[in-house]
Amino acid sequence: MSLSIMTDDHTMFRKALRKMLEKEAYPYYEQWEKFREIPREFWLKMGENGFLCPWVDEEYGGLGLDYSYSMILIEELERVGQGLGTSMGLHSEISSPYLLSFGTEEQKQKWLPGCLSGELITAIAMTEPGAGSDLAGIKTTAKREGDYYILNGEKTFITNAISCDLAIVAVKTDPHASPAYKGVSLIVVENGTEGYRKGKKLNKIGMHSGDTGELIFEDAKVPVSNLLGEEGKGFYYLMEKLQQERLVVALQCLVEAEEMLKLTIDYVKNRQAFGQPISKFQNTQYKIVEMATEIELGRTYMNQITERHLNGESLIKEVSMAKWWISEMAKRVASECLQLHGGYGYMEEYEIARRYRDIPVASIYAGSTEIMKNIIAKQLEL
Amino acid sequence: MSLSIMTDDHTMFRKALRKMLEKEAYPYYEQWEKFREIPREFWLKMGENGFLCPWVDEEYGGLGLDYSYSMILIEELERVGQGLGTSMGLHSEISSPYLLSFGTEEQKQKWLPGCLSGELITAIAMTEPGAGSDLAGIKTTAKREGDYYILNGEKTFITNAISCDLAIVAVKTDPHASPAYKGVSLIVVENGTEGYRKGKKLNKIGMHSGDTGELIFEDAKVPVSNLLGEEGKGFYYLMEKLQQERLVVALQCLVEAEEMLKLTIDYVKNRQAFGQPISKFQNTQYKIVEMATEIELGRTYMNQITERHLNGESLIKEVSMAKWWISEMAKRVASECLQLHGGYGYMEEYEIARRYRDIPVASIYAGSTEIMKNIIAKQLEL
Amino acid sequence: MSLSIMTDDHTMFRKALRKMLEKEAYPYYEQWEKFREIPREFWLKMGENGFLCPWVDEEYGGLGLDYSYSMILIEELERVGQGLGTSMGLHSEISSPYLLSFGTEEQKQKWLPGCLSGELITAIAMTEPGAGSDLAGIKTTAKREGDYYILNGEKTFITNAISCDLAIVAVKTDPHASPAYKGVSLIVVENGTEGYRKGKKLNKIGMHSGDTGELIFEDAKVPVSNLLGEEGKGFYYLMEKLQQERLVVALQCLVEAEEMLKLTIDYVKNRQAFGQPISKFQNTQYKIVEMATEIELGRTYMNQITERHLNGESLIKEVSMAKWWISEMAKRVASECLQLHGGYGYMEEYEIARRYRDIPVASIYAGSTEIMKNIIAKQLEL
Amino acid sequence: MSLSIMTDDHTMFRKALRKMLEKEAYPYYEQWEKFREIPREFWLKMGENGFLCPWVDEEYGGLGLDYSYSMILIEELERVGQGLGTSMGLHSEISSPYLLSFGTEEQKQKWLPGCLSGELITAIAMTEPGAGSDLAGIKTTAKREGDYYILNGEKTFITNAISCDLAIVAVKTDPHASPAYKGVSLIVVENGTEGYRKGKKLNKIGMHSGDTGELIFEDAKVPVSNLLGEEGKGFYYLMEKLQQERLVVALQCLVEAEEMLKLTIDYVKNRQAFGQPISKFQNTQYKIVEMATEIELGRTYMNQITERHLNGESLIKEVSMAKWWISEMAKRVASECLQLHGGYGYMEEYEIARRYRDIPVASIYAGSTEIMKNIIAKQLEL
Repeated sequence: MSLSIMTDDHTMFRKALRKMLEKEAYPYYEQWEKFREIPREFWLKMGENGFLCPWVDEEYGGLGLDYSYSMILIEELERVGQGLGTSMGLHSEISSPYLLSFGTEEQKQKWLPGCLSGELITAIAMTEPGAGSDLAGIKTTAKREGDYYILNGEKTFITNAISCDLAIVAVKTDPHASPAYKGVSLIVVENGTEGYRKGKKLNKIGMHSGDTGELIFEDAKVPVSNLLGEEGKGFYYLMEKLQQERLVVALQCLVEAEEMLKLTIDYVKNRQAFGQPISKFQNTQYKIVEMATEIELGRTYMNQITERHLNGESLIKEVSMAKWWISEMAKRVASECLQLHGGYGYMEEYEIARRYRDIPVASIYAGSTEIMKNIIAKQLEL
Repeated sequence: MSLSIMTDDHTMFRKALRKMLEKEAYPYYEQWEKFREIPREFWLKMGENGFLCPWVDEEYGGLGLDYSYSMILIEELERVGQGLGTSMGLHSEISSPYLLSFGTEEQKQKWLPGCLSGELITAIAMTEPGAGSDLAGIKTTAKREGDYYILNGEKTFITNAISCDLAIVAVKTDPHASPAYKGVSLIVVENGTEGYRKGKKLNKIGMHSGDTGELIFEDAKVPVSNLLGEEGKGFYYLMEKLQQERLVVALQCLVEAEEMLKLTIDYVKNRQAFGQPISKFQNTQYKIVEMATEIELGRTYMNQITERHLNGESLIKEVSMAKWWISEMAKRVASECLQLHGGYGYMEEYEIARRYRDIPVASIYAGSTEIMKNIIAKQLEL
Repeated sequence: MSLSIMTDDHTMFRKALRKMLEKEAYPYYEQWEKFREIPREFWLKMGENGFLCPWVDEEYGGLGLDYSYSMILIEELERVGQGLGTSMGLHSEISSPYLLSFGTEEQKQKWLPGCLSGELITAIAMTEPGAGSDLAGIKTTAKREGDYYILNGEKTFITNAISCDLAIVAVKTDPHASPAYKGVSLIVVENGTEGYRKGKKLNKIGMHSGDTGELIFEDAKVPVSNLLGEEGKGFYYLMEKLQQERLVVALQCLVEAEEMLKLTIDYVKNRQAFGQPISKFQNTQYKIVEMATEIELGRTYMNQITERHLNGESLIKEVSMAKWWISEMAKRVASECLQLHGGYGYMEEYEIARRYRDIPVASIYAGSTEIMKNIIAKQLEL
Repeated sequence: MSLSIMTDDHTMFRKALRKMLEKEAYPYYEQWEKFREIPREFWLKMGENGFLCPWVDEEYGGLGLDYSYSMILIEELERVGQGLGTSMGLHSEISSPYLLSFGTEEQKQKWLPGCLSGELITAIAMTEPGAGSDLAGIKTTAKREGDYYILNGEKTFITNAISCDLAIVAVKTDPHASPAYKGVSLIVVENGTEGYRKGKKLNKIGMHSGDTGELIFEDAKVPVSNLLGEEGKGFYYLMEKLQQERLVVALQCLVEAEEMLKLTIDYVKNRQAFGQPISKFQNTQYKIVEMATEIELGRTYMNQITERHLNGESLIKEVSMAKWWISEMAKRVASECLQLHGGYGYMEEYEIARRYRDIPVASIYAGSTEIMKNIIAKQLEL
């Protein structure tokens, strides 16, 4: 099911992309998961073929496509696997867009071509140990000293932390600002910066191909020209971009649910028990029907808010609703689908096993279910 | 939230209708529930103002409007209450349309003006004691004798049974047909027909203003000219019309959920406990957010399939999904909303009490949740 | 399933009671529901046969039995119906016990014989309009003036409000006490007291045979000798008695669930659809198995904490757990059982309809699910 | 919470066991998980200290203790981790007991001492690729040839497949028996048997320390003296032993739920967000209270049926109820607990991550939730 606005160009884009993934990603994905890395080579191939940051304007070497193409990119990456979807999806559709939206002409000239080609992998670093979802409470500081900011602090749970070349880091340039969120700024930190290093690569339940880790700043010396936008505006920038981030994650969860159901329908139609395919048992049928219905509702909602997002509407409530409901639904789907696979579902040989391990963090990152509900409650004026 | 195709004409139609209901229905609805009757007078007023069967062609005195207007009518009737919504909604949007679709010119001339004016209230009689959801298994027979059909049998759970002037009755004209469903025909039975009488008015948990009852045929003598469409085609006609019937019921459930949530949000914002409005408790907020999210998803889905229904698409799977999911969701909403009202929710003085009593049958009639799941399983080729 | 401590005496007690109810209650219960009253005559017969307040000591004319007999009484009353179970159960096992526990010798001599015979029906009046579950926040005052307390205020949602002869009323004797709960006292108010009157009889969704209503105090003049226990100790007394109150309500909910399941198993084994009893469908079986399992778990837990209650253990956490979980479970059971009855479940002719209407308040009164969770959270030191 | 029958001896047994595990298991468990093996050395230490098969009679060198001690053993092993609990628990309490119950004197003399000492690790091999839960449909054959059975076939999903020394294998000695289950026998297969080999070690989502794998029989030559009990009685033996197997698994799931909740309560009390411990949020409290309540109900039920099992009661329905409900509950607990841990819950550093991966198979093995429901439905005569 796709957007009503989709054209033949979209179909061609999806077809070309899928063809490429079938050749360059699917056959190797198990390996990437095992070795816990997406090879840079694959990033470069994707870039070469125009499948990174398709929204970058032509003047910087991009295709200048709108979010409807990004949607296709996110969907197809996610069909390969959540590790890839999250790592490359984040680079292409969540972190790199900050550069276009808030960068100076010079910054865009410098970094966007690398984002497009896959030579520069990006990350966006908000969360800190001990701060969780509370953005205004971050502790990493950036103190101006001449032409440099001196950064001190630690970030954790950062997607692409280890593999990234550029990290967009949320810092406090004014730790005494009141209200606190007015002291937040965004600074781009490049690998090789003095006093900046990658911390631990985190060992996760799933999403093994994508890396998640820590960034550590000990008197890290970042040139003032790496400030993104204006000092003190970081919180606003983050808020502005969170809508698309949550839309991306909701879409990824939806694709996960769709894929898991597809795997399971195949399985139950082929697997025999007590003399018939298990798809013939009423319990199997009802479970699948329940999942199919919820996925259909989720897909319809997703498509509708995506069209409205494309129209530039502000959708704080709607995007939050999609984020929490679809991610929670995908977790239920994972659990039911594994159960319908019987013992095989618990074996890594079966794809459902991997997707089951991948999914539970989706209701936590990019704004947990609880945070989403808080936001919606505020929107409903409760 | 409304259909994307809605125009100013729709807005005016809704406004006029709502104004009328605010004057003629809302103030009396408690009384109608108590005396378990919607006065004929109100039917006539509705007819007079063009608010019955707005889809009837102009040649029969109607407005010739499409289902998007019917949607408004169904929504506004349901906002008053489920008893009214079901009784009048059934007449206007479920049973009367059979006459237009399958009636002869003569039949249309004879009956449609009455349907429009409210002088002829209609019912559609399928269910029998002991047959439940199994349409092909009905036992009521119609034996041809000269210019008459002689009907024998019993119908139950018939909406408008007692108040209707015309009943469209599913009968077996050929009890030996194989497969059995090919023996089903539809016959219009008018009040006053020899051998035909109304049975018990059923005492229901809710929907008191709308009547539900039995129809009894003991050698009932119905002129052959009252056959609707062709002999043996009744099952097909019913199948064809079930899509809209289920769409109507799904929409009614959605409106119920919306109304109950609205009542509850008002309540929790005004009711104090432990020194603050109960809307300030996190548990209250999360419950409301969860309901609001599910309603939003349901509404989006509803609107989308309604637009496709207007385009003439066949939507067996989609309509079945909407019917079961939204009706089950509305039951959950009723239960949560009553709980959030505390002791007051159990008191008939509070509207939530009535709506809580009204709703549980919605997942049973017009195809139970179980039947819907069976249909979807078949559509998914399980 | 019954307590491990139950003896032949218990069996005989249950048998005699059930025999009496089969003669004097079951045949008339539908009438009592319809006319919204349990006749005093029935109260007197119950008293005559020793089936009210069986725990009253022999010196006051009682049988001096322990709570294990009360358990049987509560169960058997509830099997007839929740309206009876709540009204008579409250009198016998919730409100009258205050008199024995906290009354003076004189008070006991004066009132207990009437409680036993059914000549004095009791109520316990805590809730006020606007105060809900917040006992320390009650507004009804009792001002000492000579040998009288002058009561002013209003109580609502009082079980037996209309039918009671004695109301044990929670009042503020010291509205300025700090903390507030130290100002609460209990006063027994008799019918005929000057300035005291019954308010509205509330119109409820269910439990029609039992009355619920308001009590109104306008300079009501109550002799000081009607104070129960000591001034300012009312809150402690209430806390002490709440354990048994919640145990009673949890047990009633359990019996409701058991009865509804029994009705439904009978129904699905006898009702045919598509050529077989609906008990043969896997969906029906699984739904029933799920309910049977939860009821079995609930019953086991209930029996265990009842035995501990009989041993005099303090079970704040355990009783709260039983209260919320079993009442919520009974609501789920009601909803599933109605659905399994199909259209018949919505008809008052079928017992499931009544029990469905009766149950939803059980998760609200005697401490709502939310209050129970707050208490447990505190017990878990969260 | 423990059995009412537990004595000081039980307490001492538990204390000694826990002390040993704290020294010999907890510190190494992460390693065992990583290297996917429980060292034989640990088995031997357990055996040396009397912590394997404590129910073996003294004449074979055992302690002759009843199942109440086994219960303690199962609980304490599970607290370390599900991989250990399942592997060692199966050996000690599920497969070895077959030898005592159905073995000849000679067989018992030969094998029980090794079971006790940890020198012989056992497995029970029922499941086959393609047969799932359908025991009567197994395809592995054992054809009598002189003093040997010649076995052909394959087993899969066998706990301890790789590490076991003795496998008790369900085979068809009479493939033409009617009904089919009368052709099933049990044969003990020892490592080193000609034509018998271990197949793949399966790569599971969790329970990494315990091995699960395949057994392959290609004209495997097993002496007739290795037949367990009588030919053709295997199905009855399995049925008889399944009660304890399911009791064991239900207990393990309960312990998992208890441990996960404990971890989570610790976490939420220590973790801060928005200026307070997250245990102070109402949503956190309610989630924990809901889990604590269900665990309490599960524990009470577990203890009760364990006492009845100790009394030798047949508890097919009750054990099936415990198995499905507690395993499903433990999965819900895992999901909620991970969510309450936020991002940390997804990291292998946190114990909740491992337990979340371990649990989902528990509702599949030893009789899936679906099979349990089928059994209960039969017991309820649906």
